[in-house]
Amino acid sequence: MNTEPQALDAGPPSTMMDDDLSLNLLLERAGQLFGSSTLVSRLPDKSLTRHSYAQWYRRTRALAAALQGLGVRKGERVATLCWNHHAHLECYFAVPAAGAVLHTLNLRLSPAEIGWIAADGGARVLIVDDILLPLYRQFAHLCRFEQVVVFAFSGAPVAPDGLDYEQLLRAADGAAFRYVPHCERDPVAMCYTSGTTGRPKGVVYSHRSAMLHTLTACLPDYWNLRGEDVVLPVTPMFHANSWGIPYGAVMLGCKLVFPGPHLHAPDLMDLMTEEQPTFALGVPTIWMGIAQGYSAAQDPAHPDHGRWRLPPGMRSIVGGAAVPESLIRTLATQGLGIVQGWGMTETSPLATVSYLKPELRAASADERYRRAAMAGVPLPLVQLRLQREDGSLAPWDGQSPGEIQVRGPYITGSYAGIGSPPDNFTPDGWLRTGDVGHCDAHGYLCLTDRTKDLIKSGGEWISSMQLENALMGHPAVAEAAVVAIPDQRWSERPLACVVLQPARQATPEQLNRHLGEQGFSKWQWPERYEFMDAIPKTATGKFWKLRLRELFPA
Amino acid sequence: MNTEPQALDAGPPSTMMDDDLSLNLLLERAGQLFGSSTLVSRLPDKSLTRHSYAQWYRRTRALAAALQGLGVRKGERVATLCWNHHAHLECYFAVPAAGAVLHTLNLRLSPAEIGWIAADGGARVLIVDDILLPLYRQFAHLCRFEQVVVFAFSGAPVAPDGLDYEQLLRAADGAAFRYVPHCERDPVAMCYTSGTTGRPKGVVYSHRSAMLHTLTACLPDYWNLRGEDVVLPVTPMFHANSWGIPYGAVMLGCKLVFPGPHLHAPDLMDLMTEEQPTFALGVPTIWMGIAQGYSAAQDPAHPDHGRWRLPPGMRSIVGGAAVPESLIRTLATQGLGIVQGWGMTETSPLATVSYLKPELRAASADERYRRAAMAGVPLPLVQLRLQREDGSLAPWDGQSPGEIQVRGPYITGSYAGIGSPPDNFTPDGWLRTGDVGHCDAHGYLCLTDRTKDLIKSGGEWISSMQLENALMGHPAVAEAAVVAIPDQRWSERPLACVVLQPARQATPEQLNRHLGEQGFSKWQWPERYEFMDAIPKTATGKFWKLRLRELFPA
Repeated sequence: MNTEPQALDAGPPSTMMDDDLSLNLLLERAGQLFGSSTLVSRLPDKSLTRHSYAQWYRRTRALAAALQGLGVRKGERVATLCWNHHAHLECYFAVPAAGAVLHTLNLRLSPAEIGWIAADGGARVLIVDDILLPLYRQFAHLCRFEQVVVFAFSGAPVAPDGLDYEQLLRAADGAAFRYVPHCERDPVAMCYTSGTTGRPKGVVYSHRSAMLHTLTACLPDYWNLRGEDVVLPVTPMFHANSWGIPYGAVMLGCKLVFPGPHLHAPDLMDLMTEEQPTFALGVPTIWMGIAQGYSAAQDPAHPDHGRWRLPPGMRSIVGGAAVPESLIRTLATQGLGIVQGWGMTETSPLATVSYLKPELRAASADERYRRAAMAGVPLPLVQLRLQREDGSLAPWDGQSPGEIQVRGPYITGSYAGIGSPPDNFTPDGWLRTGDVGHCDAHGYLCLTDRTKDLIKSGGEWISSMQLENALMGHPAVAEAAVVAIPDQRWSERPLACVVLQPARQATPEQLNRHLGEQGFSKWQWPERYEFMDAIPKTATGKFWKLRLRELFPA
Repeated sequence: MNTEPQALDAGPPSTMMDDDLSLNLLLERAGQLFGSSTLVSRLPDKSLTRHSYAQWYRRTRALAAALQGLGVRKGERVATLCWNHHAHLECYFAVPAAGAVLHTLNLRLSPAEIGWIAADGGARVLIVDDILLPLYRQFAHLCRFEQVVVFAFSGAPVAPDGLDYEQLLRAADGAAFRYVPHCERDPVAMCYTSGTTGRPKGVVYSHRSAMLHTLTACLPDYWNLRGEDVVLPVTPMFHANSWGIPYGAVMLGCKLVFPGPHLHAPDLMDLMTEEQPTFALGVPTIWMGIAQGYSAAQDPAHPDHGRWRLPPGMRSIVGGAAVPESLIRTLATQGLGIVQGWGMTETSPLATVSYLKPELRAASADERYRRAAMAGVPLPLVQLRLQREDGSLAPWDGQSPGEIQVRGPYITGSYAGIGSPPDNFTPDGWLRTGDVGHCDAHGYLCLTDRTKDLIKSGGEWISSMQLENALMGHPAVAEAAVVAIPDQRWSERPLACVVLQPARQATPEQLNRHLGEQGFSKWQWPERYEFMDAIPKTATGKFWKLRLRELFPA
């Protein structure tokens, strides 16, 4: 299938119009059809501000006109350093409308990293939240921004040395704005991988990839997104297009609820109680916090008792790290349905979703939960295979592991300015994800580890992820991260870093007994336990294993 | 937006893989992920036969190999003259897999018309149901088929002068089959418009248009198709790709229930009772028959009392002609949800769907029914406008009519061998649908008429479609078709052809009084009523107005 096309040697070609896929069509569609839909943004002072889609449409076109007025040219990057809010959504559509490429900077990285990434991206214009200016000033010297547009997110006046976002919009003539001509393979956005090793690498999305990802992800078996949904993107808009939800929500006219900078569990639960979202997106740690907070508040003596009312039937797509089955079960008792997805910056990001396939309709509740904790089934436009170290493909037998490799029209085939290094791409053009997993005969992918997170003990591999999930299934454990520590005899041994639930106790012996009950052999048990108040996390909310290895060198 | 792309003058291009959209990927996906899903086909003797997707996958690849063995070359058309069944679904995927173009012949046309269309399409190979051979022999002399493959649908032995479909499959090596290289704009299928005037015209679909239509139509606000759906395509597979449902069902692994040649209401109700579909597709007349049959059988004295049990929560997408609100209400009381769509062969076909938009969540039941009877809201990849006779665009105010014009990547921009005549395409490249309608501020399209079905009376236009819908809302009326008859004084006047419900009576005076109550002015009332046993219908199940005008010339 991936061979060169041949010329038709008989018969008429397709008569279909050669119209390009385009995010601009979604913007126009929203302006024409969804003017009365609502955007809610939480401001730094925790108050809410509301815009109609009609206002947002006018503001977005005004921003596109303003960017042209600033001299932004076709193909140029425009950077943002912003939380999730309506103005960031304006950038999502205005920057491509002006022919430019949205480069979302990850505000959770160190200033040195942000500066390096901003310089590598090469944007001349930065749009920044006023409350993030102190962060910006820490890396400003590392990059070459010529114009800094300040969004007065906090409402404070903009200092005279910055351009005022609102003033720019007021001065621009959005009604007269004309879309910059483009074809569907032209770039619309770029995002850097949060590589734990080596330099971050840039992935550049196109109109085509964004539209194909949107159409696929919204299907009923995956996001199941419809116009009447109320969407809460907890996933930062600087991560892989906020998993693509801004495009999907705008395509369908969904109400959007942006949490701004307030991502602690009690804040999110307040927002959910107030705006009653039906669909949310976020990493597992977010939902761990919500599950814990909600459980605690069930106690009539708890100060927050009665404070939160989660929306009935609410569901959340969760990705970025594996969701333990125990967490899915806990949240289900609280009325929140968890849909697990797997993907990465390189895959736009949605590559698999764990939905219930038709042949499993009669599955027991236990079987459903077991499958809900898997990475899931490849989406229609994603081809997936498991490659073993000897280059052969692993069978889909539910046990044979291999490196997960994917390809498709919304999956990256190279990195900006780098090309396709063999560590990341196979000779036949598949993306090497660096994740290891197995597939069963139903096509459900289970991630067992990152290639670099496998623990090699006495010639056998131990999966840190499987140990983590089992430990987090123990009632006393809130979080568990497992890393390899060097061992003279066994080469490597597992070390478990554990955060206990409030007011709960567990000894290493009890945890090992629990692992034994879960089917782990003695040699797979952690060599050592470290009990911590919190596990350090990366900017993307994943366990920061590099830091753990530094903390516990041997 | 529809301007020529400009070269990027700054920054990196997209890094996304340049993988083509392809129906072949859906076939491979189904073989890999949905082997245990089921296809049910009703045979001519009304018995049912079942195949697993795994069997279907192997048979389809064997058919593709067999077609190559017959010398079918890339771009060549392969014709089918078949009812809806599993072998026709094999053709849907095997013909494109072999690099050829599926040309589905409409068996409801006259032999002369089929012969003309088959010859114009130019296929050398025909695949035909054995029970349709008598029809084929009536037009065989008009076309140039070199090889006729007979599918033994009835189970009878295939005459030695035809190739036996099953024998071909058995002899072919499907496992060794290799997909013919292609790009996404290569053709996969062609279908002729059932033009009431002029020669039929060919529309040629591509891998790209088929995939984009599939992804869009399956979204939750439109078909809402998921893997656990059981799909009953009543829409013939020779109409506009069976509205695209074969592609969608295979993409998601849905169980498919094919009715074969048995499309009368009692047969369909038997099939629905047995196989419990959750989703069906068909023209309004199908559902009129089911509503009448089901109502009649409610009577304990009726011979079919208790025979039918419609699946709970079943829904049907209905198109091809407007669905009267009264029918939607009747079917709702019977437990069947009607989703109205609008489109045509030229639009792949789904262009609009009447779903409930988010801002109408609080609408009353009456308002919901009123909107359910509209053509609906344009889909994400469809741009729609209303052009007035003076070339200006009609505002979306709920009353200003204009010709409906559409464009998008799955809409035809020309006809095979004909190009883009100005009667069918605007100078700026939009498809002129020939339908007239208005849009309201919410974006709901109402079709008021075909341009040629408007009745010009005393300088004013009367909508035959609005009169029909109002008449069909009268409890005594089963069907009503309105046509123009020449009138010396008024130029044209409406004639109403009416079929009464069994054992019900209505006089022209009573029907006119009903129209008056519905807001029609006296001059809009039909000049004349003709009560008939049945209204003649076209091959696509629409009222055959040309024939009515012949029957009642003045």
